[in-house]
Amino acid sequence: MNTSLEQTLLGAIRTIPDYPRPGVMFRDITTLLGNARAFRRTIDELVHPHAGAKIDQVAGIEARGFILGGAIAHQMSAGFVPIRKKGKLPHETVRIAYSLEYGLDEMEMHKDAVKAGEKVILVDDLIATGGTAEAAVKLLRQIGADIVAACFIVDLPELGGRKKLEALGVDVRTLISFDGH
Amino acid sequence: MNTSLEQTLLGAIRTIPDYPRPGVMFRDITTLLGNARAFRRTIDELVHPHAGAKIDQVAGIEARGFILGGAIAHQMSAGFVPIRKKGKLPHETVRIAYSLEYGLDEMEMHKDAVKAGEKVILVDDLIATGGTAEAAVKLLRQIGADIVAACFIVDLPELGGRKKLEALGVDVRTLISFDGH
Repeated sequence: MNTSLEQTLLGAIRTIPDYPRPGVMFRDITTLLGNARAFRRTIDELVHPHAGAKIDQVAGIEARGFILGGAIAHQMSAGFVPIRKKGKLPHETVRIAYSLEYGLDEMEMHKDAVKAGEKVILVDDLIATGGTAEAAVKLLRQIGADIVAACFIVDLPELGGRKKLEALGVDVRTLISFDGH
Repeated sequence: MNTSLEQTLLGAIRTIPDYPRPGVMFRDITTLLGNARAFRRTIDELVHPHAGAKIDQVAGIEARGFILGGAIAHQMSAGFVPIRKKGKLPHETVRIAYSLEYGLDEMEMHKDAVKAGEKVILVDDLIATGGTAEAAVKLLRQIGADIVAACFIVDLPELGGRKKLEALGVDVRTLISFDGH
């Protein structure tokens, strides 16, 4: 049976009501990752628009972006660049502060992880307000990356993250949207 | 040029002396991940012993095990299971405490992430004392996983981790060893 992409993803993503707090519908992609067919299809759908293109690096945002980014980098025969919470990388880094719902946090990457002009795809599991992804875009551009696309499985369009990235001139690709938070 | 696996890995892994503290030679695999050829070869070397075998799930240990595990799971058309630090997973979990150099920590996985009898490969970037990997093995077995192998890029044999896993009956595969810490 040739199930549509949307059916496959809807059937594989688990929704957890009132997590992490009342009123939030949490979209849990671990059930998708654990479903071999859905995981395979997700990665392949994120990769195929770039077939034949030369991508140098895939940058994944800690932690779920590491799972997807590792798979995408291997599939594209590209390198992988981790964008981490502060204090986790052992060599010289560039760092950026960004807003969370409550307060500020910082993320960083190795200064030599991307060479100026290299073509990079940014990856995370979900885009909501886009605060984290926007910071990652700025960090990558700070060291001269040419961001070809930003890829996510899930879009929560009401929270405006996609528009925020598009306003920065980033080509955004998502596979499924959910209304509400 | 057909470079040996060992040469490829030695040339791609960065050693940072005195990190995170004096006397430690830190083996930084981010330079290997960012080297497309070395990353590709690493994943392919970890996968090929299992060509033709039915692997249900690849379990990756947070956080660097997510990068490798995501790539291996996709390459094998298996599912991926995250083993996370406590408090990060949204659904019902199983949890285990384990010793770090200073004090205790806990890791967990979703209770329904692996079905009893499923064939699982455990992945992390490096095995040192093996405390984390041992806890991951116990956690996976607690929910009935059949652990086919545990894979790491780097082995630090003097620290005894490989022997600790082998004593549990786990087939351990590593790609390169370094003396000392």
